[in-house]
Amino acid sequence: MKALVYHGPGNKKLEDVPKPVLREATDAVVRITKTTICGTDLHILKGDVATVAAGRILGHEGTGVIEETGTGVSRFRKGDRVLISCITACGKCEYCRRGMPSHCETGGWILGNTIDGTQAEFVRIPFADTSLYLIPENADEDAMVMLSDILPTGYECGVLNGAVKPGDTVAIVGAGPVGLAALLTTQFYAPANLIVIDLDDNRLAVAKQFGATTLVNSADGKAAEKIMALTGGKGVDVAIEAVGIAPTFELCQEIIGAGGRIANIGVHGASVTLHLEKLWSQNITITTRLVDAVTTPLLLKTVMSGKLQPKQLITHHFTLNDVLQAYDTFGNASKERALKVIIANE
Amino acid sequence: MKALVYHGPGNKKLEDVPKPVLREATDAVVRITKTTICGTDLHILKGDVATVAAGRILGHEGTGVIEETGTGVSRFRKGDRVLISCITACGKCEYCRRGMPSHCETGGWILGNTIDGTQAEFVRIPFADTSLYLIPENADEDAMVMLSDILPTGYECGVLNGAVKPGDTVAIVGAGPVGLAALLTTQFYAPANLIVIDLDDNRLAVAKQFGATTLVNSADGKAAEKIMALTGGKGVDVAIEAVGIAPTFELCQEIIGAGGRIANIGVHGASVTLHLEKLWSQNITITTRLVDAVTTPLLLKTVMSGKLQPKQLITHHFTLNDVLQAYDTFGNASKERALKVIIANE
Amino acid sequence: MKALVYHGPGNKKLEDVPKPVLREATDAVVRITKTTICGTDLHILKGDVATVAAGRILGHEGTGVIEETGTGVSRFRKGDRVLISCITACGKCEYCRRGMPSHCETGGWILGNTIDGTQAEFVRIPFADTSLYLIPENADEDAMVMLSDILPTGYECGVLNGAVKPGDTVAIVGAGPVGLAALLTTQFYAPANLIVIDLDDNRLAVAKQFGATTLVNSADGKAAEKIMALTGGKGVDVAIEAVGIAPTFELCQEIIGAGGRIANIGVHGASVTLHLEKLWSQNITITTRLVDAVTTPLLLKTVMSGKLQPKQLITHHFTLNDVLQAYDTFGNASKERALKVIIANE
Amino acid sequence: MKALVYHGPGNKKLEDVPKPVLREATDAVVRITKTTICGTDLHILKGDVATVAAGRILGHEGTGVIEETGTGVSRFRKGDRVLISCITACGKCEYCRRGMPSHCETGGWILGNTIDGTQAEFVRIPFADTSLYLIPENADEDAMVMLSDILPTGYECGVLNGAVKPGDTVAIVGAGPVGLAALLTTQFYAPANLIVIDLDDNRLAVAKQFGATTLVNSADGKAAEKIMALTGGKGVDVAIEAVGIAPTFELCQEIIGAGGRIANIGVHGASVTLHLEKLWSQNITITTRLVDAVTTPLLLKTVMSGKLQPKQLITHHFTLNDVLQAYDTFGNASKERALKVIIANE
Repeated sequence: MKALVYHGPGNKKLEDVPKPVLREATDAVVRITKTTICGTDLHILKGDVATVAAGRILGHEGTGVIEETGTGVSRFRKGDRVLISCITACGKCEYCRRGMPSHCETGGWILGNTIDGTQAEFVRIPFADTSLYLIPENADEDAMVMLSDILPTGYECGVLNGAVKPGDTVAIVGAGPVGLAALLTTQFYAPANLIVIDLDDNRLAVAKQFGATTLVNSADGKAAEKIMALTGGKGVDVAIEAVGIAPTFELCQEIIGAGGRIANIGVHGASVTLHLEKLWSQNITITTRLVDAVTTPLLLKTVMSGKLQPKQLITHHFTLNDVLQAYDTFGNASKERALKVIIANE
Repeated sequence: MKALVYHGPGNKKLEDVPKPVLREATDAVVRITKTTICGTDLHILKGDVATVAAGRILGHEGTGVIEETGTGVSRFRKGDRVLISCITACGKCEYCRRGMPSHCETGGWILGNTIDGTQAEFVRIPFADTSLYLIPENADEDAMVMLSDILPTGYECGVLNGAVKPGDTVAIVGAGPVGLAALLTTQFYAPANLIVIDLDDNRLAVAKQFGATTLVNSADGKAAEKIMALTGGKGVDVAIEAVGIAPTFELCQEIIGAGGRIANIGVHGASVTLHLEKLWSQNITITTRLVDAVTTPLLLKTVMSGKLQPKQLITHHFTLNDVLQAYDTFGNASKERALKVIIANE
Repeated sequence: MKALVYHGPGNKKLEDVPKPVLREATDAVVRITKTTICGTDLHILKGDVATVAAGRILGHEGTGVIEETGTGVSRFRKGDRVLISCITACGKCEYCRRGMPSHCETGGWILGNTIDGTQAEFVRIPFADTSLYLIPENADEDAMVMLSDILPTGYECGVLNGAVKPGDTVAIVGAGPVGLAALLTTQFYAPANLIVIDLDDNRLAVAKQFGATTLVNSADGKAAEKIMALTGGKGVDVAIEAVGIAPTFELCQEIIGAGGRIANIGVHGASVTLHLEKLWSQNITITTRLVDAVTTPLLLKTVMSGKLQPKQLITHHFTLNDVLQAYDTFGNASKERALKVIIANE
Repeated sequence: MKALVYHGPGNKKLEDVPKPVLREATDAVVRITKTTICGTDLHILKGDVATVAAGRILGHEGTGVIEETGTGVSRFRKGDRVLISCITACGKCEYCRRGMPSHCETGGWILGNTIDGTQAEFVRIPFADTSLYLIPENADEDAMVMLSDILPTGYECGVLNGAVKPGDTVAIVGAGPVGLAALLTTQFYAPANLIVIDLDDNRLAVAKQFGATTLVNSADGKAAEKIMALTGGKGVDVAIEAVGIAPTFELCQEIIGAGGRIANIGVHGASVTLHLEKLWSQNITITTRLVDAVTTPLLLKTVMSGKLQPKQLITHHFTLNDVLQAYDTFGNASKERALKVIIANE
C-alpha cells in the first residue's frame, strides 16, 4: 500500500509498504478514507519528537472503513465507517479509568508516533473498541476528521480546563487551527466576550468569522495593555494559550483576572517564567493537558445537531498521491491561508 | 402614590396609598419605572399563598430609579437606574453566605408577599446593596424586567440544576413563561436536542421560535411513548418540570434516562408519587429550588452581549393605570397569547 | 464442583455442578477463596427478583485466584489473587465510558443474577480486565470481600451522592450492613454529627462503635421530631436512606434541611410519596444509584492505608459446605446479631 | 490603650495610642482577648510589605468581645464573644459575591496592613457582620485564634485547591505553621499517604505527631528522588507548597504525577521557573490563592465536634505586655521550637 514514511529530520517519502495486519485480539485494521496533517507532524519532521523513529508512517487523524477485526473486538465489524481517535485507549488501565487515556499505560498518543499512522491506505488500530467511533449515517466525513484531534484538543485542553461560563470574558492567544478549535467550542458556553490575539491579520479575520467579538493584533507589544483596558482593568476570566512559546504564556499571566484560569494548550519546547511574586495572591488556576479525546461522543452529538460546524476549519483538499503538496501547503499556512487540509484516498 | 393592593381572595384594587419611607439603614426607596405580573401573583389572588395578608401591595419584579438611600447603603445613590431582584438578600446570614438567599433569614421572597411590592409608583427595598443591581447604560429596561425573576428562575432551577451539557437531549415540560425562560437559557450550553412538551399548540409554536428542536403535544397521552421513541428508548439526559402538577412530574419520571436529572421548577400544591420501585437503580438526580437570583450578574452579561434576548418573552405593554387590564390579559394567557406583560409608569 | 444453586422461591441447594469454562476471549475463570451473602440474595430466594432463573448459582461477591484467562485478557494471569466486583463492566459501552457500569450494555449486575455467581468453587467472570482487581500482597482477604459490593454501595450511593462535607450533619436511616458501610465511609469526610436511626437497639449499639455520634431509635415514631430538635430546627445536611421502604424515605423528607441532599441506597419494592408541596422550594437534591463500583481502587487504597477497616463488618465465618447454615445466620440477622458473614472454600 | 506599632523596617514598639472609634455604620469595635503573630508580620517588619505604613498597629488575627457596634450592624451586640477573620469582607461587591473576599473591593486583608490591627487592646472591624464570627459557648479561645488565618489558609489554599480525595498520596512541602495547618486539614479527606518534606528534623517530628505518614528531610537534595521511589515512579496526586521560594516550587513540579494538582500556599517574593516543556502534556493543575476565609463556619463545626484540634499548633503563651518577647520567640521559631504563640490581654 501507499504510505507517507518518515526517514529522519527533513526527510519524508510517499512509498509502497506492506499493508498492516492484526497483531492482537483487540486490534482492527482500517482502510483510510480521509486523513489530515497536524502541527505535530511538522514538529516530527523537524526532528523535535524523539519518540518517532525513522521508518514510521506518519499521521494520527482520519476516518475509514473497518477492514478486519481481532477476536477480542466486539463493537465493530467489517464495513463499519469509523472515526479514528488520535488517542489510543486500552480502557483498562488506571489512567483510562480515571478518564485520562492520554496517559494510557499501553496507548495514549502512539499513532504516527511509536506505531504506524494514518497517512496511508490502511492502518492497524490497537484497542479498536475503545479507540474508534462509529460514524453516524448522515455525517460528513470531512467534518469527522476534525474530531480526531483538533476539536477535542481545543475543547478539552482549552475550554473545559478553562471552565468557561456564560457571560465570561475569554481571551484566546493564538488563532492557528487549535486556537480556532477552542474558539468554536468556547461558544458552547455563551461567553459574553471572546477576544482573540494573534500577530497575523488574516488569521484574526478568520477568527472574526468564527465568532470572535474582539481582535487584538499583538505585533505592537501592547496586547496586555489593550486587553486590560477592554476589561476595565480587571483582566479576563479565562485565558487560553494556543501557541506554546514563552511570550504568549507571559501574555496570559498579564491579562488574567483575580480568580481566573489559564488553560494551556500549546506544546512548549522550553520552560517559562511563572510570576508567582504577583500571582501567588491572585487565586488563579493554571492547567495543562494532553488531549484525552474523551469528549468525542459529546462533540459528535454537537456536530450532528449542527451546534458545531467543523468544516469551517478545512481550507484545502488533496489526495494521498498529493500528500507532499498537502504538506507544502500546510507548512506554509500563513502564505497559503491554510487551516486544516483534507487528504482523501480516491 | 398609586399601587395595586390585594384585599383578600379575588379582590384587588388600584388605589392611593402613602409613599414608602426608609425604615432601616440598609433600605432604599426606588421609584418604579417598569414592573410585570408573575404567575405567583395569580396564585396570591386565588388565596393560595397564606403569607400574603390583605392590604399588601403586590409585585416582586421591576426596574426603577433610586429615590433615597439609608445611611448603611454604599453601592447606590439617588438617580441610579436599578433592577429589582425578586429575592431580597441580607448578604450576611448562613443561607446568603451559602449562595442560597432564597432562604435568607430576614429576606428571601418577601416583596409583594410579607412586605409591599413593586406594582406601585414606589417601593421600599430592604438590604438594597445586595438586592438591587445597577442597570448598564445601554440596557433596554423591558429586557431588564425579565431578569427580576423569570430568567433566573428558569436558569437556576431548571438549567443549572439540570446540569445541561453540550450534546445533551433536554426535555422541558411546560411552555409557559417559566418553561420558555428555561428554554432560552438552556441554549447557553449547546444541547443537541431540545424537546418541549405542552398541551397548547400556540405555546409550542412559540417554543419552536425560541429554539425548541422537537415539539410534543401531550394531549393524546402519548408524550412519554413519543419521547422514548425519539431517544431510541434511552430517555432524556435532563427533564425540566415547569408546570407544578402531578402528571407533568410523572412524565418526567417516565422519560428520564439512566444517569439523568429531573430539575423541578414548578410550584406544587400537592404531593406526587415517586416511582422508587423503578428509579432506585436508575442513578437519577431530582432537584428542587426556589430561585436564589444569584446568577443575575451572569445573566446581565449575557443580555448585554446579545447572547440572551429577554424581550422575546414580552407580548403586551400597559401602564400602571391599566394594571387591572394587564391582569386580565395575563390571566387569560392562552386566549390572549400572552407571555410576559410590561407595566410602565408613565 | 460444589455450588449453591437457586431452584425457585424458597428453594436452594448445595450441589455438584460442572466447573465453568471460558466462553469469550475476555473471560477469566476464578477459583473462589472467599465469598459472602448479600441482602439481595435473600430477596432472590423470596422470588422478588424476576431476572433470576431456577438453576442459577447465587452470589456476586468474593475473592479468588485466577485459574484461566481468555486470549483477550491482558491484565491478569493464572495464580493472581483477585477481588471480584459485583458489577461486571465491559469498559467499552456508552455507560461504562460515562463511569456508570451499573448500566453496562452487556454487564452490570449479572453475577448470581443472569449468569452463574460466586457461591461456588469456581466462577466465570466476563470482561475480566475491567471487572476484577488485583489484591495487594499484604491485604487481608476477608476485608477484600467487603469491597465487592457493600462498601462501594455505601460509599457511592450514600456518601458520594450525599456529597458529605467536613462539618456536616449527616443522618443515616437504617443500621443494617449497608447503612453501616455508609457510616464507615462517611467518616472519610469529617462530618461533625453522624446521626444513625434504626428500630433495633443492638444495631444502634454497633453504629455507636462504628462512629455514630447520635443514636435515634425510631420505634416511638418521634425520630423526626428528635432530629429537628437536635439540629435547632434546621434539619440535616445529608440524609442517607439505607432501608428501602416508604416510612424511611418519608423520614428523610421530614428531616432534610434547606439545601440538603437525600441519597437513596435502599432497594424499593413500591413507590413512595414525594412531598413536593413542601419540598419544591427547599432547594433539595434526591439521588438514586445502583452501585457502579467505580470507586473500588480508591477504597482499596483507604483499606491498605488503614483509613477504612472493613473487617468490622464481619461477624461470622463459615465454609462453603456450611453455606446453608450461613444463610440461616444471615437470614436471622437481628437474632444472630449478624452483619456480614464470610464463606470460605477450605 | 496599649498596642504594638510598626515604625518602619526593623522598628516596632508597644506604646499607648488612642482607643479606636466607630467610623462607619457597619463598623464594630472589639476588645481583644487573644491574638497571635503571623509569618506575614515578620515580613512586614523586614519592610517587605509596601502597603504597611509607619504608625500602623500590627496583627490580623484574634478573638475578643464586642465593645460597640454601628447602626448598620445587625448580627452582633455588645458583649458577644467573637472570632476576628483576617479577611474583611464587605459582603456586597462582585468578589465577595463570587466567594472571593480576599479581593473584596473595600476589604480583603486590610487589618494590620492598611488599617490598624489586632495586636492591641481594642480594634475597629469594618463590615463587622460579615467579618466576625460568634464564638460558641463551649469553645476554647486559644483554638479559636487559630481560625482567624492559619487554618483557613492551610485548608482553602492547600487542601481545597489541592482537591484532596480519600486514598490520595499528598505531599506537603514545608512543615512550618501553615504547612502543618494544611497537614491537619488534609486529614478531613482520608488520604492514604501524607508525605511531609522539610529541612528541619524537629519540624518533621512535629509533622509525624500531626499525622504525616512519611517524613522526608530534603537537606540532601534527594527529596524528589525519594518521593518518586515511594510512589512507584508515578508521583503524588497533590503537592502543597507551603514555603514560598523557588526550590520548593521546583520540588512540587518534580514530584507531581500525571493528572495531579500543585496547590501553592507560599508567599513568593520572586518569580519561579515553570517547566512547561515537561508539564504541558501532564494534565496538571496549579493553583494560587490568598485565603478567602469563607470556610470559617465549616472549620468552626469541625473544631466544635473534635474533628480538628487547633490547639496542637500552639506552643507558647504570652501577654500583650510581653509582645516583644513573643516576637522574639516566634522570630526564632526553629531554635525555640515555636509554632504559633498566643498573646493574651490580661
